[in-house]
Amino acid sequence: MALREAMGRLLPLIEEALQEAVKPPDPAVKAHYGMMAYHLGFADVNLRPARASAGKRIRPLLCLLVTEATGGSIERAMPAAVALELLHNFSLVHDDIEDDSPTRRHRPTVWKVWGIPQAINVGDGLFALAHLALERLADQGVPPEIVLEALRAFDDTCRLLTEGQHLDLAFEEREQVSEEEYLQMIAGKSGALLGLSTQLGALVSGAEPAKVDAYRRFGLSIGRAFQIRDDILGIWGDEAVTGKSVQSDILSRKKSLPVVYALMQEGEAGQTLRAIYTQPEIAPEDVPEVLHWLEVAGSRAYAERMVREAHAQAMRALEEAQPLEPAGAALRELADSLVARAY
Amino acid sequence: MALREAMGRLLPLIEEALQEAVKPPDPAVKAHYGMMAYHLGFADVNLRPARASAGKRIRPLLCLLVTEATGGSIERAMPAAVALELLHNFSLVHDDIEDDSPTRRHRPTVWKVWGIPQAINVGDGLFALAHLALERLADQGVPPEIVLEALRAFDDTCRLLTEGQHLDLAFEEREQVSEEEYLQMIAGKSGALLGLSTQLGALVSGAEPAKVDAYRRFGLSIGRAFQIRDDILGIWGDEAVTGKSVQSDILSRKKSLPVVYALMQEGEAGQTLRAIYTQPEIAPEDVPEVLHWLEVAGSRAYAERMVREAHAQAMRALEEAQPLEPAGAALRELADSLVARAY
Repeated sequence: MALREAMGRLLPLIEEALQEAVKPPDPAVKAHYGMMAYHLGFADVNLRPARASAGKRIRPLLCLLVTEATGGSIERAMPAAVALELLHNFSLVHDDIEDDSPTRRHRPTVWKVWGIPQAINVGDGLFALAHLALERLADQGVPPEIVLEALRAFDDTCRLLTEGQHLDLAFEEREQVSEEEYLQMIAGKSGALLGLSTQLGALVSGAEPAKVDAYRRFGLSIGRAFQIRDDILGIWGDEAVTGKSVQSDILSRKKSLPVVYALMQEGEAGQTLRAIYTQPEIAPEDVPEVLHWLEVAGSRAYAERMVREAHAQAMRALEEAQPLEPAGAALRELADSLVARAY
Repeated sequence: MALREAMGRLLPLIEEALQEAVKPPDPAVKAHYGMMAYHLGFADVNLRPARASAGKRIRPLLCLLVTEATGGSIERAMPAAVALELLHNFSLVHDDIEDDSPTRRHRPTVWKVWGIPQAINVGDGLFALAHLALERLADQGVPPEIVLEALRAFDDTCRLLTEGQHLDLAFEEREQVSEEEYLQMIAGKSGALLGLSTQLGALVSGAEPAKVDAYRRFGLSIGRAFQIRDDILGIWGDEAVTGKSVQSDILSRKKSLPVVYALMQEGEAGQTLRAIYTQPEIAPEDVPEVLHWLEVAGSRAYAERMVREAHAQAMRALEEAQPLEPAGAALRELADSLVARAY
């Protein structure tokens, strides 16, 4: 209820501010900004205005809900919300090239339509615009030292994102990955960005440092739960609902948490899976066997337990932060939906 | 003389600060930072310490010389100098992928050694580190509002760099490009970054706005002269000196200024070149004919005149800025050497 009301009110404001952020400053570079608008769902492949399915805007939503939960102003925090969504999309545009993904949300990816050189450059443009958006906090009357603190947290997260992506790319080439390495990798990927979203929402409101930190830990834990849920869906999700082949994470030998957990086991399940995962390829006909041994190893139950633990940690951090209502209720609902999601 | 003294003193400090900026914060991501160190010339392909030819560090040098010319402290300005070199190298790592360049300074490019996915990510990492470096100005006692002003100028330049790169990539596909479009493209590429280098050097010293602007225009004009000189060397340079095939700019039908100028001509030279440049390919045996008609069109003389004009503008802006000596003399020598360079 609280979440639905908040989404109905905030999402249109977010969309409007995002569209404004990717307007071309000069007609000569219209196509550069058009590709960004395409990626964000505001344009079609011919760069004509469109309304495509464009992502759930979870990061700006989290940021603005925390702003409300700390008594801040939505208008004042909007540049931070826009910056978070642009940063997220910069990383998606580059990840799609790096992972060789031809489609995203049922549409061809930017590199697939305009080629790798322009797509790299479009991602770089989004990265620059994300910073410019965050710097506009100063125009909203946020004190320069707070804007600077926000920028330092923002760029530290950018650094962690590239470190997480480095590990993810490196793990594909490796036979075995420890659970600790896996957790470091996902902390850099989804975790850091969700932690930044809640941190900035509180920082811009002028919340005290202990409260800002509680919100940051709330976001980090949601991020961890969200990522492990993603790993579970990548193996056991309903293809009709996720729109993504459940086999693909197995065929690509992705070192997701259920796999990492099983590969560490001493018994027959671990031994068999290690033998399968050291082969250069996993064939589609081997998938049922992999699924069988993952179940035997207890991977699914373990991953589900990790999701619940991360969720419980998030709830404790949120309680510590003492959010104003009804924003607090909306944050709890959002956390629940991200953890329980089937897609 | 003044330049040689300044380089002997400043370059070792710049190298030391750059090396410090790409140290891995965690052993797990050593290879990520190792690839950055490789690109910057501090490591070999096995990521062992090395001393490779690593670029002329023109941007940090310009920045620090302007700091001295405005009575500022080198130590205080160093984070800005490091940020400029990291930003420049972020764009080189991505440009090398976008332009399909296998070598840079006689060594394989990052993407050629570690593949496109890791190379995109290494560029993104350098982009994040460049921002983190600039933000460290605050730790040197630079007031937050000045650091914020520096960051806004920095990201506006990042935006212009991606716009310039967008135009450069788009021009390759087009038959004709106007001189105005060409100048817009290079303003975004080299120009903006050199203008930023001199601007930041003055800003960090606490120079008054009119002086900061004069230094910015000094850098912009040097950038324009530098880029047009590059275009001239790409067609008429001595291959033994430049280390780059003089034919390559013609074979790739690059829309550099001499070509743009000739393609606009009414007479026989323009007509013939337009016919050649609308063909899908230019063959090596056609190069002498292209060179002949460029000479007839007066392209070389025109481009040389444009270099001299940009240089004269730079000198006027520098005079307006009233630099302290001997830094002023070093800046004049640096501008002269960039404009007169044969490589």
